[in-house]
Amino acid sequence: MEPRRAYEQAVQIMQTASDLAAAAALLGWDQETYMPPRAADARAEQLATLSALVHSTLTSNDARELAYYFESADSLDGELDDTEKRIAKLFAREVQRAAKLPDEFVRRKARTTSLAQEAWKRARAESSFELFSDHLRRVVDVMIEEATIRGYTEHPYDALLDIYEPGATVRQLDPIFDRLERATADLLDAVARSGIEPSDDVLHAHYPASAQVTAARRIVEAMGFDFAAGRVDLSAHPFCTSFSVSDVRLTTRINEHDIRACLFGLIHEAGHGLYEQGISPRLERTLARDGASMGIHESQSLFWENIVARSEEFWYWALPVLREYFPEQLGKTTPDQMYAAINRVRPSLIRIEADEITYNLHIVLRYRIEKDLIAERIKVEDIPMMWNEAVKSSLGIEVPDDAHGCLQDIHWSFGGLGYFPSYTLGKLYAAMFRTALLDQMPEAPSLVRRGEFGPIRQWLRAAIHQWGRTFEPAELVHRVTGRSLTEEDFVAYAWSKVRRIYGDV
Amino acid sequence: MEPRRAYEQAVQIMQTASDLAAAAALLGWDQETYMPPRAADARAEQLATLSALVHSTLTSNDARELAYYFESADSLDGELDDTEKRIAKLFAREVQRAAKLPDEFVRRKARTTSLAQEAWKRARAESSFELFSDHLRRVVDVMIEEATIRGYTEHPYDALLDIYEPGATVRQLDPIFDRLERATADLLDAVARSGIEPSDDVLHAHYPASAQVTAARRIVEAMGFDFAAGRVDLSAHPFCTSFSVSDVRLTTRINEHDIRACLFGLIHEAGHGLYEQGISPRLERTLARDGASMGIHESQSLFWENIVARSEEFWYWALPVLREYFPEQLGKTTPDQMYAAINRVRPSLIRIEADEITYNLHIVLRYRIEKDLIAERIKVEDIPMMWNEAVKSSLGIEVPDDAHGCLQDIHWSFGGLGYFPSYTLGKLYAAMFRTALLDQMPEAPSLVRRGEFGPIRQWLRAAIHQWGRTFEPAELVHRVTGRSLTEEDFVAYAWSKVRRIYGDV
Repeated sequence: MEPRRAYEQAVQIMQTASDLAAAAALLGWDQETYMPPRAADARAEQLATLSALVHSTLTSNDARELAYYFESADSLDGELDDTEKRIAKLFAREVQRAAKLPDEFVRRKARTTSLAQEAWKRARAESSFELFSDHLRRVVDVMIEEATIRGYTEHPYDALLDIYEPGATVRQLDPIFDRLERATADLLDAVARSGIEPSDDVLHAHYPASAQVTAARRIVEAMGFDFAAGRVDLSAHPFCTSFSVSDVRLTTRINEHDIRACLFGLIHEAGHGLYEQGISPRLERTLARDGASMGIHESQSLFWENIVARSEEFWYWALPVLREYFPEQLGKTTPDQMYAAINRVRPSLIRIEADEITYNLHIVLRYRIEKDLIAERIKVEDIPMMWNEAVKSSLGIEVPDDAHGCLQDIHWSFGGLGYFPSYTLGKLYAAMFRTALLDQMPEAPSLVRRGEFGPIRQWLRAAIHQWGRTFEPAELVHRVTGRSLTEEDFVAYAWSKVRRIYGDV
Repeated sequence: MEPRRAYEQAVQIMQTASDLAAAAALLGWDQETYMPPRAADARAEQLATLSALVHSTLTSNDARELAYYFESADSLDGELDDTEKRIAKLFAREVQRAAKLPDEFVRRKARTTSLAQEAWKRARAESSFELFSDHLRRVVDVMIEEATIRGYTEHPYDALLDIYEPGATVRQLDPIFDRLERATADLLDAVARSGIEPSDDVLHAHYPASAQVTAARRIVEAMGFDFAAGRVDLSAHPFCTSFSVSDVRLTTRINEHDIRACLFGLIHEAGHGLYEQGISPRLERTLARDGASMGIHESQSLFWENIVARSEEFWYWALPVLREYFPEQLGKTTPDQMYAAINRVRPSLIRIEADEITYNLHIVLRYRIEKDLIAERIKVEDIPMMWNEAVKSSLGIEVPDDAHGCLQDIHWSFGGLGYFPSYTLGKLYAAMFRTALLDQMPEAPSLVRRGEFGPIRQWLRAAIHQWGRTFEPAELVHRVTGRSLTEEDFVAYAWSKVRRIYGDV
């Protein structure tokens, strides 16, 4: 086979898979935004059909032969340019990953997790782990099987981490998460010692819904989100999805008594959206039109949500903007009061309500439980006790019931073991990218203070967005920061916030 | 092969094709409602991929073998029930139709019509037939080729009619359309003789946009459109589409100085929507979850738009409802004034603005031109002269330019030759269904007067909707009315309206 011809054939296969995946993504978007209630069953069938077709497109004989060719050929040099070579290798990797999972297994997993999701909903509503445990046991068994099928060198959990964060391993994450946990404990001690409790009353004034959406849209437009190539709608849970680099959809939700839900929700999703809009158009309709990993994707949403929009500089610009919509609610608030209100540190039971610093403790405890479940060191019935003990020891809170404990998240019910670490990896990457940005663009904070986000967005695009999925996360992070994954930048960043709000404790 | 097993295999193929078609329909809906502007190119690629996959699903070797089996088997009796037999035969017919069109031809037609659509837009904007004629010639050539590929017995145009109205032929339509044309001329004479010109000023008061949508939604909800299995959005051109019997989408448009655009637009689309919602759930994910034909589908939209909502009885109920939203605009209008305003007969140049009676003249002239083009009796360059002469002789108006003449419709540019007759067939079918309804439910007008639409909707569902595409149009019409297609019912209905408004002329 001739490399150029092989590459073109692979591109055709990827175009079909990519168009099917885009259609599936639109079905998913519509389901969360506009779909009428009675349509759910038919929609599930449609999504199942499209998923099966994506899988069969990537595992056809032609696709497998091309994958084998790209894996084994040393001869791509000179025939394909660097980007094409990376796309070809990505194609080969994805085809081989897809080919490993037998159809029978994919169907069985879909059935098991579909039933488990229904059971989880009931179990959470009734706060009864009993109602969920048999289903979760089956999910864990399926995921252990999946780890075996996917293969690993050291730890079976590595096979699941690899789905979301290619290259991540237990050996790498264990020491980072341990150090992060200890550093967080020190931070919490400092906060407690300070005796300071910033007021966040301003966040809970009455903010009418439509003005919230208008104001939040204006802020993400200033960030550079392109509304000619994207849009904003409402959904119960905010998300970002895309169907091409020119069609990126964000959603947000509204709480009239908490300005954070809509505003930070939309800024977070717009961080994902800027990533999707910033991918090189050259990667359109290939497997590389995607983020480098879940963790890298999350680093972009968290960069904008936390590092930019939870900085004090941001509020010198944003408060006057928001006051146009909420003159009474925000008339007397100063940037430093806002900064303190939105960065207040306080241990809490629910992950998605946690502040930037205690959040990681929620992830570390889930990571340890998942790892031990997959290694068969603990049993499903041990989870509530382990969970409650971990929350008590790391956050200092008693878990009143499982709905506020180990039943709070949907992830395990859909088989998403290996997914949670992405959230903390996103925080660590974002802090590393912040260091690199401040190094190369020391004026960044003053730009934020003036609402001039263009140079920062351009920097992120050049460093991260444009490459899509052509680099693995470790390689990308090394290119941008010159270093490997570390918790140090996040910890230093967290200390600077804590000292600013709670004093030099 | 065993009939039951063959049927189940065919169902699986239809489920895949149907899910892909539903996804394509959602992509199309989104394109007209919410898609951001820059997404158009990627969306076109996605739609092309899904269409190609629907085609390849229906023309796979398995599908062809099953089609051959169903066509040739006499042995389905006793093994499959009536509905299953009809679905199997429909499957066979559609597979064989799809298999006739070579991939090369489908791609060439798509390319030709895609270019022609762009050229048509420019040509209409500049009112220059010159800019369109070369493209239209290529489209006509492609459609002549398609007629040959599809095959016909008497007239090549029959092959194109059959796409939209299975079984319809030139031999059948010629005399009906001739008689309809003469009857319409008599009606127009009577209107002119009367010297009466009803005022339609009330239609052109200022009607604020959001109240129009709220009021129109309330009216189609009263008709029985199920908002738990459907929704309403806005688009430049109103349409109805569906992704399952439980997911039917309507759109409408708003003109703040013409109450008709939104209201009659939505009632029309809801007529289509009630058809889609009324199809038996048994037909879900088969080729039979569809209307019997374009003409039958149009009969349902026109039944509600014209026969129900342009009746005098309707306005005894609807005026008080609309006055809740528009007390000043409609405060002094009586039902008979409204009836006259919305039924005023006046020849006009633009088809989509025509009244119920002159509308058919627009169709008849297009039908004759299409027929002669496909039979190669006239040339593309003859169209403007033929068109202008036909408008002059049948409508009595001079065509000032091609934008208001033969360039006004998009249909030819997308290769839709054979489509226009559906509109008039819809009117004729609707009038025939009206006769049958009045025969079986003489109280129907008094139900309409009270806004009690349930029994009428149930009658339409039982007679027409539930069957989906399991009957061909002629068979369905015969079951419901006991007769074959005729213009007589429409002509009688038109005379009764004309006499009511213009007196006994």
